[in-house]
Amino acid sequence: MKNILIIGAGRSSSYLIKYLLNHAAKEQWKIKVGDISLENAKQKIANHPNAEAVLFDSNNQALREASIQQADLIISMLPAHMHVTIAKDCLKFKKNFITASYVSKEMQEMQAEVKNAGIIFLNEIGVDPGIDHMSAMKIIDELRDKEIQLEGFETFTGGLIAPKSDDNPWHYKFTWNPRNVVLAGQGGVKFLHQGEYKYIPYHKVFSRIEILHVDEYGEFEGYANRDSLKYRELYGLQNIKTMYRGTLRKPGFCKAWDILVQLGMTDDSFVMENTEHMTYKDFTNSFLIYRKNDSVDLKLAYHCGIRLDSPTMERLRWLGIFDDTNVGIPNATPAQILQRIMEQKLGLKPEDHDMIVMLHKFDFTLNGKRKQIQSSLCVEGDDPVYTAMAKTVGLPVAIAAKLILQNQISIKGVVIPIHKEIYEPVLKELENFGIHLKEKEIDVNE
Amino acid sequence: MKNILIIGAGRSSSYLIKYLLNHAAKEQWKIKVGDISLENAKQKIANHPNAEAVLFDSNNQALREASIQQADLIISMLPAHMHVTIAKDCLKFKKNFITASYVSKEMQEMQAEVKNAGIIFLNEIGVDPGIDHMSAMKIIDELRDKEIQLEGFETFTGGLIAPKSDDNPWHYKFTWNPRNVVLAGQGGVKFLHQGEYKYIPYHKVFSRIEILHVDEYGEFEGYANRDSLKYRELYGLQNIKTMYRGTLRKPGFCKAWDILVQLGMTDDSFVMENTEHMTYKDFTNSFLIYRKNDSVDLKLAYHCGIRLDSPTMERLRWLGIFDDTNVGIPNATPAQILQRIMEQKLGLKPEDHDMIVMLHKFDFTLNGKRKQIQSSLCVEGDDPVYTAMAKTVGLPVAIAAKLILQNQISIKGVVIPIHKEIYEPVLKELENFGIHLKEKEIDVNE
Repeated sequence: MKNILIIGAGRSSSYLIKYLLNHAAKEQWKIKVGDISLENAKQKIANHPNAEAVLFDSNNQALREASIQQADLIISMLPAHMHVTIAKDCLKFKKNFITASYVSKEMQEMQAEVKNAGIIFLNEIGVDPGIDHMSAMKIIDELRDKEIQLEGFETFTGGLIAPKSDDNPWHYKFTWNPRNVVLAGQGGVKFLHQGEYKYIPYHKVFSRIEILHVDEYGEFEGYANRDSLKYRELYGLQNIKTMYRGTLRKPGFCKAWDILVQLGMTDDSFVMENTEHMTYKDFTNSFLIYRKNDSVDLKLAYHCGIRLDSPTMERLRWLGIFDDTNVGIPNATPAQILQRIMEQKLGLKPEDHDMIVMLHKFDFTLNGKRKQIQSSLCVEGDDPVYTAMAKTVGLPVAIAAKLILQNQISIKGVVIPIHKEIYEPVLKELENFGIHLKEKEIDVNE
Repeated sequence: MKNILIIGAGRSSSYLIKYLLNHAAKEQWKIKVGDISLENAKQKIANHPNAEAVLFDSNNQALREASIQQADLIISMLPAHMHVTIAKDCLKFKKNFITASYVSKEMQEMQAEVKNAGIIFLNEIGVDPGIDHMSAMKIIDELRDKEIQLEGFETFTGGLIAPKSDDNPWHYKFTWNPRNVVLAGQGGVKFLHQGEYKYIPYHKVFSRIEILHVDEYGEFEGYANRDSLKYRELYGLQNIKTMYRGTLRKPGFCKAWDILVQLGMTDDSFVMENTEHMTYKDFTNSFLIYRKNDSVDLKLAYHCGIRLDSPTMERLRWLGIFDDTNVGIPNATPAQILQRIMEQKLGLKPEDHDMIVMLHKFDFTLNGKRKQIQSSLCVEGDDPVYTAMAKTVGLPVAIAAKLILQNQISIKGVVIPIHKEIYEPVLKELENFGIHLKEKEIDVNE
């Protein structure tokens, strides 16, 4: 019997736990699900004979170390900042460790020790980061094997709402952390275009977008992520000319979002006056010029140079920013108030289905002709528990866990899934769950 | 004999030292000028019989305490962050202390102790802050004495170039700290307009400007300072409906500056790639879209929606942002590179004369009619040592020093010059030096 410890039984763990339970008997696994809420953990394991729900408080060192010491593999689904504490225990007791989160500076600094201990700390094996790494590296390695020089690599992912649940003019709902959505793009953007480094300040990010097409799902907009060059060296693309990472939204979203940015509503750096007694309309008015008798919506349309009857204005009106609803949060920043307003309208309903969309574009020249491979993925959620997000985050983690316990992964150290021995079997098994990247090669006309 | 210690013999101390030396014999003062460069200090006192140049290193505690202990009054003209160290010594030895800088949090926290010690720490008695406080409080107190309720207060100051030295299309030169000029407005802006709190995000600060008129000097533009409400309570204006603090520039400056902001050139939050080998044109191009054969100036004009033959484009071209000059600074932020470019063109020449312009507007209703008092000041520098800046910063400090040594100021504690017993005699004596605010009352038509 091998022992697996899963820490964190939140929404994003649903598929992960389900997969591991389904394989537990055949693989001879004993699975412990630890959560700060024992009730949560119990619900997830549903009396499975190979599973046990335990209380896990990451601040309780004795409890934490005892649980970790008994396990062969630890999976942390906790918030990202809590992984390092767990990782240090794993190092102490020489246990393999998996997370779906970005490798933090502290995690990276453990590289030599983890290698020396002969164990693997596998990170960034969710969807984004995760499936994006794996599906991109598959094609990058294939081209490399054919000695084709990759000239451009663009990649986009979006956490969106499935068409069947798309019932608002933004064609968007909060399927991910709303605060991160409100603050997206802050700090500005850096990418590489035809050998030139390009920078976009925050206030221009949502007006310099790309229009993209995904078969069967139609048009999307892509806005640039903060640092498109983060994985240039890790992917082995030191000489690439164009590299761009972006986020997908449905058409029209970015133009309307840009208005909120232009007004200053996404600012999280200062507290506004008198927010407890302010209405949504007062909030909007505080970013507009004073005019004794004019209405707030006309002043906004004038200030931003948009028509009162434009689709953008329709989105803003629908959102409620001209309503007399009370904000009701004391000492709030603009971003906190905007998040509150948006959550009223863009929150997920119990019957909603989410959707993950991913698109890669690989540019190269073959026999003097410019070519592009496009690789795309759309995954819709089954229901509010088994969401597309939980599926695309949880399944790669679960499959990687199985591979590690079966000793099928030889690499040691602090790792992300850019290695063939990881991405090949994970991508292959994901196909059984309908997570399948469609690839096509097209000619590019300059 | 009374002993004065002046710490810091830089350019802004020239008028201060001159005034004190001129009064030394009659007032029976012994003046020590301390500087990290003994040569600097010697130059400033020019063998005056009542003066002595001493080496002063604020990091040398023994030297520092010895100098301070021997003085009756200490004046610090050091950079703002160094005042607190000096202030703590002054408290220890119960010595009066003057600076022209903003009251820091640490300085404010000494309030109770300074009061208890029966001494005065007089701050913010330069030009801005300084003459602005004094000239505003004079009129605010006059209106209060007449029981007139002040409805609006707007105040603007600019450190500019005198008309006789104005030889460039920006009508501007760096007469103040260039880095502060490049970063001005960052963090956004807050003010009060007709009872409504208004906020402007950084990227809109230079497009939401006011046009202002100063007699004899013509038109100016005013852009908003960070926190216009900072002095609301200190000035006793708790119930005021409009309060706005701004910075003055000559017409056209803000529109051209706004282009630099829109592009992202004033960003100081990240280091650009390859800056050492980049030209000014490369720098500009890095904020623009990639187009294989198009020129950088056309792309900029297109991106920013301005004409190639517009005055704004003329200012940008003159500045050199399309030149092939090498940047030559490794690992630089956009703001650092922009500062370098601007310093080449907008640096002060030895023969240049600077100018300080200040304008206050006070709005109130008298007998049912709306009225406005305007109070304005223009001071031109004499030469590169005796600048308008040195005059308007140094003379108020010097006059206040005299008043304190003559025991004419009774208030104790950490103080700014909003009190009549300070501003009245200082403003009166400043008139002898041509520093005189012109006041006029006008009718306001709504």
